[in-house]
Amino acid sequence: KTGIKQNSQSTPEELRCLCVLVFLKDLAGMSAPQRNWKGIAIALLVILAVCSLITLSVILLTPGTPSSDTKLMVEDLFSTDFYVHDPEACWINESEVIYRNHHGHVIRFNILTNETEIVLKNSTFDTFKATRYSISPDMKYVLFAYNVKQVCAAFCNNRCVLQLDPPEVLNSKLQHAAWGVQGQQLVYIFENNIYYQSDVRTNSLRLTSSGKEGVIYNGIADWLYEEEVLHTHVAHWWSPDGERLAFLVLNDSLVPNMALPTFTGSTYPKGKQYPYPKAGQPNPMVKLFVVNLYGPTHTLELTPPDELKLREHYVVMVKWISKTKTAVRWLNRAQNVSILTVCDSTTGACIKRHEETSEVWLSRQNQEPFFCRDGNRFFLTVPVKQGGRGDFQHVAMFTSQARADQNELRHLTSGNWEVTQILAYDENSQSIYFLSTEGSSSRRQLFSVSTVGLFPRRCLTCELNKAHCTFFSADFSPTNQHVLLHCERAVLDQDSVFIRVFSVFISDTAPGGQQVNDRYSLDWDSVLVSSDNVIVARLDGRGSGFQGQKVLQEVHRRLGSVELQDQLAAVEYLLKLPYIDRTRIGVFGRGYGGYVALLLIKSTENVFKCAAAMSPVTDWSLYASAFSERYLGFPLQDDSRYQFSSMLQNPQSFREQTLMLLHATADANVHFQHTAELIKNLVKVGANYTLQIYPDEGHFLSKSSQRHVASTLSSYFRSCLQEEVLPISEEEEEEEE
Amino acid sequence: KTGIKQNSQSTPEELRCLCVLVFLKDLAGMSAPQRNWKGIAIALLVILAVCSLITLSVILLTPGTPSSDTKLMVEDLFSTDFYVHDPEACWINESEVIYRNHHGHVIRFNILTNETEIVLKNSTFDTFKATRYSISPDMKYVLFAYNVKQVCAAFCNNRCVLQLDPPEVLNSKLQHAAWGVQGQQLVYIFENNIYYQSDVRTNSLRLTSSGKEGVIYNGIADWLYEEEVLHTHVAHWWSPDGERLAFLVLNDSLVPNMALPTFTGSTYPKGKQYPYPKAGQPNPMVKLFVVNLYGPTHTLELTPPDELKLREHYVVMVKWISKTKTAVRWLNRAQNVSILTVCDSTTGACIKRHEETSEVWLSRQNQEPFFCRDGNRFFLTVPVKQGGRGDFQHVAMFTSQARADQNELRHLTSGNWEVTQILAYDENSQSIYFLSTEGSSSRRQLFSVSTVGLFPRRCLTCELNKAHCTFFSADFSPTNQHVLLHCERAVLDQDSVFIRVFSVFISDTAPGGQQVNDRYSLDWDSVLVSSDNVIVARLDGRGSGFQGQKVLQEVHRRLGSVELQDQLAAVEYLLKLPYIDRTRIGVFGRGYGGYVALLLIKSTENVFKCAAAMSPVTDWSLYASAFSERYLGFPLQDDSRYQFSSMLQNPQSFREQTLMLLHATADANVHFQHTAELIKNLVKVGANYTLQIYPDEGHFLSKSSQRHVASTLSSYFRSCLQEEVLPISEEEEEEEE
Repeated sequence: KTGIKQNSQSTPEELRCLCVLVFLKDLAGMSAPQRNWKGIAIALLVILAVCSLITLSVILLTPGTPSSDTKLMVEDLFSTDFYVHDPEACWINESEVIYRNHHGHVIRFNILTNETEIVLKNSTFDTFKATRYSISPDMKYVLFAYNVKQVCAAFCNNRCVLQLDPPEVLNSKLQHAAWGVQGQQLVYIFENNIYYQSDVRTNSLRLTSSGKEGVIYNGIADWLYEEEVLHTHVAHWWSPDGERLAFLVLNDSLVPNMALPTFTGSTYPKGKQYPYPKAGQPNPMVKLFVVNLYGPTHTLELTPPDELKLREHYVVMVKWISKTKTAVRWLNRAQNVSILTVCDSTTGACIKRHEETSEVWLSRQNQEPFFCRDGNRFFLTVPVKQGGRGDFQHVAMFTSQARADQNELRHLTSGNWEVTQILAYDENSQSIYFLSTEGSSSRRQLFSVSTVGLFPRRCLTCELNKAHCTFFSADFSPTNQHVLLHCERAVLDQDSVFIRVFSVFISDTAPGGQQVNDRYSLDWDSVLVSSDNVIVARLDGRGSGFQGQKVLQEVHRRLGSVELQDQLAAVEYLLKLPYIDRTRIGVFGRGYGGYVALLLIKSTENVFKCAAAMSPVTDWSLYASAFSERYLGFPLQDDSRYQFSSMLQNPQSFREQTLMLLHATADANVHFQHTAELIKNLVKVGANYTLQIYPDEGHFLSKSSQRHVASTLSSYFRSCLQEEVLPISEEEEEEEE
Repeated sequence: KTGIKQNSQSTPEELRCLCVLVFLKDLAGMSAPQRNWKGIAIALLVILAVCSLITLSVILLTPGTPSSDTKLMVEDLFSTDFYVHDPEACWINESEVIYRNHHGHVIRFNILTNETEIVLKNSTFDTFKATRYSISPDMKYVLFAYNVKQVCAAFCNNRCVLQLDPPEVLNSKLQHAAWGVQGQQLVYIFENNIYYQSDVRTNSLRLTSSGKEGVIYNGIADWLYEEEVLHTHVAHWWSPDGERLAFLVLNDSLVPNMALPTFTGSTYPKGKQYPYPKAGQPNPMVKLFVVNLYGPTHTLELTPPDELKLREHYVVMVKWISKTKTAVRWLNRAQNVSILTVCDSTTGACIKRHEETSEVWLSRQNQEPFFCRDGNRFFLTVPVKQGGRGDFQHVAMFTSQARADQNELRHLTSGNWEVTQILAYDENSQSIYFLSTEGSSSRRQLFSVSTVGLFPRRCLTCELNKAHCTFFSADFSPTNQHVLLHCERAVLDQDSVFIRVFSVFISDTAPGGQQVNDRYSLDWDSVLVSSDNVIVARLDGRGSGFQGQKVLQEVHRRLGSVELQDQLAAVEYLLKLPYIDRTRIGVFGRGYGGYVALLLIKSTENVFKCAAAMSPVTDWSLYASAFSERYLGFPLQDDSRYQFSSMLQNPQSFREQTLMLLHATADANVHFQHTAELIKNLVKVGANYTLQIYPDEGHFLSKSSQRHVASTLSSYFRSCLQEEVLPISEEEEEEEE
């Protein structure tokens, strides 16, 4: 199943006019290959396309490797030399993948015969000014996303093009479109309603009619569900046979609207509004439905478990585990009770299979369970106590007992490291495949563990290109016979990088995230490191992920307290290093990290010579309910936890600090409100600040604005951290010459 | 007639909850003095209260006079030492003035007997947390403005207080309240409707009912009329006997609304909207009415002259010239044809008395004519040709002929200087009193000229406190027997100020304004002058006022061209001065001046090391119709004049420039839009800028923000213009010690 994603559906700034074309010509002569669902003996295969990606990263980075001659510049960050091509390879059957090569052609590659074939030419992308594509399961059609206003006029009379345009909807924006799982099944969303076509030539069928912009969302996430609950805008799920579609209905009618201003682009720019529940405000109400697509359509609600029926809750995970059954996870608003149910899509009944509770909050709630075919057994990662170091996430096997919600629990792995993701369960070979931090929390290696016997465990990638690849992600073939591996690490020449004298301190992850790992990244701070004798330090303190539950959960109800302590301890450590100039330390953070950066300068004096915060959260009561409440609880009247953690109290502490703020004015995630409230306070106490705004841009900036941020930040820290050297007098200069 | 003004009625950001109290106690025992309307022999009297103001300015400024020891600091600008107390003195009858003294008491002062009496104690102001006050014509009541939400609860049960609160209006904001001209007549405005009370105890009478927020304005100005047409929010005028009230009705239903965002102050801040016609957009439609207040009220429209009846027009001036007649000036939208009519408030008929036309635009359209009692003669300033230097504004006497719209025209004054304002016409002594620039365009002296014989002219203030006072304003007593003089100049110790080496160039006036004059002002640039060896230069180039019509009108249809030439010529001149460092010149401007500052840096290379623009206009098509169209005409499709003058074209020219922008985000005059559009362009081309915003503040900043601006600008120019001196080495330092 492949789809074209329209990111941030619920964040107005990201909305683009999106049109979908069904394009026949290129694929017309092809016959649909028979999917091979038969099991083959396990053979782990790192396919060529992926190997070339690994090599690619290394080769492409070589020109930028810092040496005495070559320094990384801001312009380099945006040059094609440093751009890592992602082939977006995916399986189309057990022996074939499709990927996009360097030239932009879409290639079908047979891993058994090594044969390749061009499926789509790059010129087709140019024709439609499209970058995203998606090929139908029967390999006959391709879906392109492009801007209807700019391009459509030129191609609508062309016979090769079909356009998604249901008769009920006039001039409306397409919010999502994707192929189903069989043949040419298509599902797309206009005006928060789901439309279905059984093939590209049939009329569209409207599956829902309650959709209303900013109020009722069918099959697509509102802002909160996209950003904080599902982490995708897609809120519908195909049954494996394509016969049924499960979808969420979100009712935001009680959720207050946040206004996003617009400043540019017209004589009278009009602002936008969208539902955004801040801490303590009414949340969207959620219902889960299944619609039957074969024969006369009928829609059935999957009922929440009794415990949560009358309480506010989230639906955080939906996964089909058979043709008629779905696994659904329900989470209470406080996020400390979650119930995994198995729902029957023919009756709507949901049976509880597993319950989790926590004294703090429950993490990994999007995690999909892996069920065996008969549904009696499933696998999940769960926190397991590892002596004094607290709980770590490990693979657990749940086998059902007499009562459906009682399971026999067996732990398949253990140790002071975490299973970060279960990727596949191969019932034939009785193996679980997973990624873990075993060996180092900065790494991700692919392992298998047997579900029988003594649960023998084997690392599948540890010996693979050891020097360059220590951070993998993986994509299993339909029957788990092959796997696509992505090496996400690239190594720079470390020797020449780390002999530096002063420091920028970067603080950037929200709870559960990770800063320090082997994943490749290149940003403005790399420029400072390469060219300006700057050490960039990153710390995963308490609250960060992949180091066990204890580290993660320490921030509970103490947001803004323990992270601060850890960051300060790290700075203390830095200051003791002989090659660090303690008068020249800076700090930077973005989003939650912007909050921590502000926290650091607010709590210290004369430690940080410069500080920059981008899109900082300055008050958690102004941020999203699902996030703030997870860590600080539901806010009470004059809630001291919220007040204590606010950057808007005691602004005097900012008075003596050099501070740069950066924020896009139409940021739908961290509202410009956060920066505006802070500035209002800074102005009141006469504190200094410099500001960069990105008018009418959202949380994710345009290319030219990203470039502007990189250049602004590197200049800011360069000039702020510059040693105040005595200029060489003219005579001395002459002497040197 | 005195009134409490609610500034910027139509600019939402300035709206405050305003409540009016009628306060009895302090004045209860007083008898209403008989107004003395009899003529007395002319005696020009500079009364004591005013003399003390003059002295005051000088004394208070002395501590800040720069000397080798004392330098002016930013904090000084806001200290009480430098605050000039304005006693707001005004005449209550021919021999008495009322003013507020240093202690905050309101004093009644008899200029003939020298007796004083406290009318209102400062403690009363404290009680109501009020700063503005207004005393009824019968001297029995005082009107206070205060915030009902904060204060009213404490006082509403107090017997001494009456509150304006008509039964028709619930929880609405009072937009304006003022005494009438007789007894206790009161007029006030709620929800764009006018209310009248014949005395403080009677019920209120609603005079209009069509009022609707943002749509129909009765007796009060919309944004355009307040800011660009009438220059006051008051759009109603009392007849001299208090029997009639003339008022404008503005219909803004076709005027597009501009959105002002709100970022702070609540969890979900809501933006505001208000009608703001930008260049070329529909303007408010205006009608003028008179309502009869004695006996049964009836309302009559005063009909526009036939020439303008069917064309878009403004009403720019209304003045009662007798109990039943008003002089009204009507101006076409292009602002080059104006008609002065005399309207009969009993019939509604308006008779044309004088017509002005211009090939460019007409200036001084708010100017009130001075009519003689029988209405056959009136006085105005009009442009008079003075040889090759073009037209200058001079006093003209119009005497009606057989046809009402034909006048005999006599010029009472002439010369290469301008009459800036006619203040009074004393029919008994046959004299006109006026202010003029005779001697120097930077001065304002009070003159009289006889309306008979050879029109002998006499300066009344030229010999008055010559050293300190060269810029006067004046306020005549009811029968013109006495005058209150305000000296608006204060002299700093010039010797120590003007021996400097580098320069900030300030560009700040809109067409018709004046930068260079003897009026006292103290701002952030004074700090640079006093403390940082900076010369601040100001220029009144073409487009500026008070130097004749030719200088003023040169900008017509060339906004952004001739000012630029003149400013550049002035910079060229500066650069030739031996004590100016040509590598260190900066430029600053605000509003229109911000536009010129941007224009200067855009058109030059390496001339200005630093530049700052506050609330700059960046595109005239985004600014107010009445302003932009006056100078650039009604914008056509792809209007080249507008495009040529825009700062949003060719942003590359800003690439190499250091630039600071300052803008309040809720500026209702120059919208933040202007700065946002500029920044969007700067980001696109990767240009540098620094920004200071004042969240949710309007065009006029709060005290703390003003302080922040002063401190930001002085630091910015100080550090940017700083000489890059070689630091003294440690040894040398020791030697010096």
